[in-house]
Amino acid sequence: MADKVSPLAPKQLPHLPPIAGVRLAGIEAGIRYKGRRDMTAILFAAPAEVAGVFTRSKCPSAPVDWCRKNLKRGRARVLVVNSGNANAFTGARGRDSVRATAAAARDAFGCRKSEVFIASTGVIGEPLDTSRFGEHLKLLGERAAEGNWEDAARAIMTTDTFPKMATRTFSAGRGTFVLNGIAKGAGMIAPDMATMLSFLVTDLPIAASLMQKLLAKAVRTTFNAITVDSDTSTSDTLLLFSVTGGKRPIAAAGDPRVRAFARALREVLHELAMHVVRDGEGATKHVEVRVRGAHSAKSARRIALSIANSPLVKTAIAGEDANWGRVVMAVGKAGEPADRDRLSIRFGDVRVAHRGRRDPGYDETAASAVMKRDFVPVTVDLGIGKGEATVWTCDLTKAYVEINGDYRS
Amino acid sequence: MADKVSPLAPKQLPHLPPIAGVRLAGIEAGIRYKGRRDMTAILFAAPAEVAGVFTRSKCPSAPVDWCRKNLKRGRARVLVVNSGNANAFTGARGRDSVRATAAAARDAFGCRKSEVFIASTGVIGEPLDTSRFGEHLKLLGERAAEGNWEDAARAIMTTDTFPKMATRTFSAGRGTFVLNGIAKGAGMIAPDMATMLSFLVTDLPIAASLMQKLLAKAVRTTFNAITVDSDTSTSDTLLLFSVTGGKRPIAAAGDPRVRAFARALREVLHELAMHVVRDGEGATKHVEVRVRGAHSAKSARRIALSIANSPLVKTAIAGEDANWGRVVMAVGKAGEPADRDRLSIRFGDVRVAHRGRRDPGYDETAASAVMKRDFVPVTVDLGIGKGEATVWTCDLTKAYVEINGDYRS
Repeated sequence: MADKVSPLAPKQLPHLPPIAGVRLAGIEAGIRYKGRRDMTAILFAAPAEVAGVFTRSKCPSAPVDWCRKNLKRGRARVLVVNSGNANAFTGARGRDSVRATAAAARDAFGCRKSEVFIASTGVIGEPLDTSRFGEHLKLLGERAAEGNWEDAARAIMTTDTFPKMATRTFSAGRGTFVLNGIAKGAGMIAPDMATMLSFLVTDLPIAASLMQKLLAKAVRTTFNAITVDSDTSTSDTLLLFSVTGGKRPIAAAGDPRVRAFARALREVLHELAMHVVRDGEGATKHVEVRVRGAHSAKSARRIALSIANSPLVKTAIAGEDANWGRVVMAVGKAGEPADRDRLSIRFGDVRVAHRGRRDPGYDETAASAVMKRDFVPVTVDLGIGKGEATVWTCDLTKAYVEINGDYRS
Repeated sequence: MADKVSPLAPKQLPHLPPIAGVRLAGIEAGIRYKGRRDMTAILFAAPAEVAGVFTRSKCPSAPVDWCRKNLKRGRARVLVVNSGNANAFTGARGRDSVRATAAAARDAFGCRKSEVFIASTGVIGEPLDTSRFGEHLKLLGERAAEGNWEDAARAIMTTDTFPKMATRTFSAGRGTFVLNGIAKGAGMIAPDMATMLSFLVTDLPIAASLMQKLLAKAVRTTFNAITVDSDTSTSDTLLLFSVTGGKRPIAAAGDPRVRAFARALREVLHELAMHVVRDGEGATKHVEVRVRGAHSAKSARRIALSIANSPLVKTAIAGEDANWGRVVMAVGKAGEPADRDRLSIRFGDVRVAHRGRRDPGYDETAASAVMKRDFVPVTVDLGIGKGEATVWTCDLTKAYVEINGDYRS
């Protein structure tokens, strides 16, 4: 099903430069399928600073609980990722599996269990068998190399149709630094659970607590501003590591080097988030929903998500139909302050509705041309305030239903 | 597209008995299409008591605004319904169209404009041409008859694949009374907007203010507990009329006759709401989501709607897959209090998950048998409180995407 590459895939993959002291590998561990890489590790030569954000689900997976706990110490020596089994909703056995994985990593790499970070994606409710993780981790250690970023990006894929990578090189103070990121998207394949995972590494030495603040801010307008189908995984995990190379990590938000890093962080997260949307299940359109003139930024965001998650808006876009009536519907159902008679709606540059009615100068041919493109921007101006928000999504096609509904015969 | 009758349609239509003083008709007014009944009227020989509930959209249609205003007086002589044009998002012209319709009805039936109720369903953003409404209403008056309930139910259909009717005869005090109801569902057809309309009439004399209270309560667990795709129309309208036949209407909630009426009301609304779900676009399954053991009833309702609106749950049900992992996901994303390790999930009578993990006695064959039926009950017990709620929905199929996305070539 996921054999066909998304029509929205990038033409060319970026090259992620090696980062000294960071080795990566991906192997076939046979967790659920044969002949498929399903286990990855990122190994840090010395303890890295680490920050993270996770799913907001009230029923998170065992690995999410584990990472949250270890984040308090803010130090990482190894990240272990498996696909095929999410180790979610597995009760006490789930906690045992996570502990066993951490113990195996401790033994393989000579670190503390609290320095082991774990992410799992795949089927929910099945116990995760970790009995062979010792040998798998040993093999990962043997294969790990600094040049393996694309391998790692490929090995965390599940239903993704292309590997997701982004990188920025930035100057900060007297040095030049790198920020590399990989991600896997909210794709689903029989019978795996959609989960977003993303891992970033920089060689700018920066303290965990400061990274945590920068990350929390940057995800708001990137990974937390995308939606494929409004469904939130039990396992979403985003981790940001800094290898310090023995240098004292930056801890003050006012340090002049922070600004360049924060910008690179925003850019890498944005790029990865856009890749995830463009690889949404069955996607044929990349949709940007901008809301402005709302009562507040929070209100703008709610309205934007109401539009981006509306099945009727998403199916209209799949049909290349500039159906602004459905956008009005989605604004109305958001429950946020709105004045019907001040609302304006644009598809691309074409204003289709203005001040509560169809734009008198509306040009259907121009609107149709916008809808035929890969990237469809929808702008709604509520005309009642200064609140703004942008979210991104994809369209809803028959392929989405096929991928998620047709796999049991 | 809507030519095929839903596989979930009732085998037999109920017969709605005539109610003295209530005449109905449906005609071809050519509002958008030719050769299709698109205008309906219900005429009351004497002013009827009337109550109503409407869409919660912040961008309601002009007819919704009109009805809300007239409801304050609580008297109705005529209900006029058109399909093909929702008269929504039409600015000042929308208000003019509604006034013109009311004036035409006043002239045709010799009533006050404040006694005219109006509902419109169809395309959004197009001005509604009312220039011929005078002759249409005259024709409706000529054709109207007490035995025309099925005609009226058929004439308000848009993408509905079957007419929706329900009736109850009940004893109250020394008399026997009738409550008849018709509805049209949240169906969508090129290029009409999904809208739920429902109209009920009883010959129990009961005051508007008391009906309003009873109606508001009864919709909570019926029409406001169903969802097809989470999208709320600008035009949803539910009106309840009482013809008093010159008798003094019951105004006291404690009147012994009220109880029988309230029960009939609940039953008729439930039956109509189930018809709407069973005629959801592309539906092949009728799904009941029961949540119990939640922190509160409100919390239970939010969780139930999160499950019922989840595209991943709905596509799994379309695929006859007892995918309880997606139910866990939907519970988790609702943001309501939940304890993963106390959660139990059943499909039909088959318990698939218990206390945070797969039920040890889980029988896949039994679960599959449940999923193959037309009616799929999903029960979630959160195990943390006493809150309960039930909502109903349908599955999400390729036909839904086809109906809503493929109509422009």
